[in-house]
Amino acid sequence: MAKVTGLEGVVAAETDISLVDGEKGHLIYRGYWAKDLALTCTFEQAAYLLWHGSLPDEETLAKFTAQLKTYRAMPEHIKRIMDALPQDMPLMSMMQTAISAMSTGAFAWPPTEAQAMQLTAVLPTIAAYGYRKQNRLPWHEPLDHLDHTSNYLYMLSGKLPEAPHAKALNAYLILGMEHGMNASTFSGRAVSSTQSDMASAVSAAIGAMKGPLHGGAPSEVIAMLDEIGSKSNAEPWIRDVLSRGGRLMGFGHRVYKTKDPRAEALRLVTERLTADDPWFDLAIHVEQTAIRLLEEYKPGRRLYTNVEFFAASIMRAIALPTPLFTPTFTVARVVGWTAHLLEQASVNRIFRPQSVYTGPMPQETNT
Amino acid sequence: MAKVTGLEGVVAAETDISLVDGEKGHLIYRGYWAKDLALTCTFEQAAYLLWHGSLPDEETLAKFTAQLKTYRAMPEHIKRIMDALPQDMPLMSMMQTAISAMSTGAFAWPPTEAQAMQLTAVLPTIAAYGYRKQNRLPWHEPLDHLDHTSNYLYMLSGKLPEAPHAKALNAYLILGMEHGMNASTFSGRAVSSTQSDMASAVSAAIGAMKGPLHGGAPSEVIAMLDEIGSKSNAEPWIRDVLSRGGRLMGFGHRVYKTKDPRAEALRLVTERLTADDPWFDLAIHVEQTAIRLLEEYKPGRRLYTNVEFFAASIMRAIALPTPLFTPTFTVARVVGWTAHLLEQASVNRIFRPQSVYTGPMPQETNT
Repeated sequence: MAKVTGLEGVVAAETDISLVDGEKGHLIYRGYWAKDLALTCTFEQAAYLLWHGSLPDEETLAKFTAQLKTYRAMPEHIKRIMDALPQDMPLMSMMQTAISAMSTGAFAWPPTEAQAMQLTAVLPTIAAYGYRKQNRLPWHEPLDHLDHTSNYLYMLSGKLPEAPHAKALNAYLILGMEHGMNASTFSGRAVSSTQSDMASAVSAAIGAMKGPLHGGAPSEVIAMLDEIGSKSNAEPWIRDVLSRGGRLMGFGHRVYKTKDPRAEALRLVTERLTADDPWFDLAIHVEQTAIRLLEEYKPGRRLYTNVEFFAASIMRAIALPTPLFTPTFTVARVVGWTAHLLEQASVNRIFRPQSVYTGPMPQETNT
Repeated sequence: MAKVTGLEGVVAAETDISLVDGEKGHLIYRGYWAKDLALTCTFEQAAYLLWHGSLPDEETLAKFTAQLKTYRAMPEHIKRIMDALPQDMPLMSMMQTAISAMSTGAFAWPPTEAQAMQLTAVLPTIAAYGYRKQNRLPWHEPLDHLDHTSNYLYMLSGKLPEAPHAKALNAYLILGMEHGMNASTFSGRAVSSTQSDMASAVSAAIGAMKGPLHGGAPSEVIAMLDEIGSKSNAEPWIRDVLSRGGRLMGFGHRVYKTKDPRAEALRLVTERLTADDPWFDLAIHVEQTAIRLLEEYKPGRRLYTNVEFFAASIMRAIALPTPLFTPTFTVARVVGWTAHLLEQASVNRIFRPQSVYTGPMPQETNT
């Protein structure tokens, strides 16, 4: 039977955008620790950094932020398309379709920073509009005085977000922006390599992100936190699972063999906000208890908390239901995708690997 | 500056679907010469072969053809979306968006043959509907008594097609169905490898096909045939170009170092139809004259006619304007894409190559 290599270990591109070092637990964006950026920057600053390679000064940031806001509202035809889509369509499919529909003549090759800003600014609006439509909730247009993250939360909930929630989500979005040559980023670069436009490439990346092998979901961690429910129940609940040989959700990662730097950053953010939200308080307590008990039941295994553990506690705290997890991840990752598409365009070469034919040969000769 | 490898020479997958051998001039579909299939099969037979690995018997073919027809009409929401798209949107973007919108819950992983049939059957309708919309022409629903190729021509033109035109287009579509691990097929497989759905993967493949480095266009050949205009003008026109050191369009190919098997097949089809259409007659005459004069002006260079030369003469004969070239190529290639997606699913492994970080390192240590 035909085999697929998955291109494991094959270098597809050099990149100036990020370094993922799973052995050392390093995640670097453009020369900065992603962890530090998540603790100190806004979504806007981090996006500027990934697109430009340097952080903006105050004046540049103000101009950049203002420009980003101008792209938040959906173009008229995108709204028409969102309205025309079936109510029960998966939200990720709605987002993929709407971004594909951005691919008008204005989005011709080569990709530009203005296009990256447009797609990044409109995607939260599309996601929130689709979510409100699916749940038959009234729609609120984006609010200009809110920053990118707060406005996303506002459009989803229809309410002005609490500051600790916006802060935690901001950190999560920054840590989700970029992660090397993952499947969605790679798919987007492959599409773009034919000199197709940026909207088409981002639409393809959303399609890849939609697959469960990529986008993931913290739903099992959310279910665990819900079941535990209170700090006093944490130790007995975890002991019960571990003594039965069960598995704790939210620990261990395919790439990171040591501490996941994204989990580290989100722990720090969450720790500072335990007084502000009971779910943050519970998450920190559950993590500490789990680490202690894992060492007791599985000594030497050194299982680390992964990013989904804290993502789950943030999703739970800000009351975002599970179907919004991958869309929210996408609202973050679009920044990395567009950074990669700008980079790909600057050094473009069409992706055209080989295949090996393993089927039958014709019985007769070629005439 | 960061570099992109393009994955040249890297094997991304084994495949039972096709062999492209540019040195030998071979194109094999599932153990059959693509050339023979183009001369002897219908679109429906060739599609069945690519999906199943064997040609259908009469009864199977009848059932298969009937089923394919049931999927021709656009689902109601796809029509709404086509109507909502801007009039001046590139046709390929319309097709990409409409196929993305097929990605409802019914299209969940894993891909199935019924889904492949659905996408293949509806894509000509979407392309024709978009073309008629762009040109403000009235729309005619698909006709059940016509075969796949004739119905496509009918929906485009609003007229029952002449048999020689349908025959030539049928051969072209079969030869366009499949060509190994090209950029669009590869992009589709990459998206699908995350266990995303078939409609999303085909939408991504359309996005890749849209790029001018992939989809190509025979417009320069069409312009050349138009300029030559008559058989008597062929020799003086070509002598004029070659004596000025100019280049003839429609000769030479990146992959095929010898005769392009697709051009060979289309020449045979075209030769048989010279009495039926003056454009076929002109194309054969221009090709023979060009080959003779190329040998005279550039002896030993051995330049061969490429597939676009004959594609252009077919497009010209059936009066399909240039903007329909890549969409028509897509109507063919969707068969190969979906065959690859079915194969990918059967042996799936996520595509996740490496990147090498070439950006700066943080000045401070990771804390």
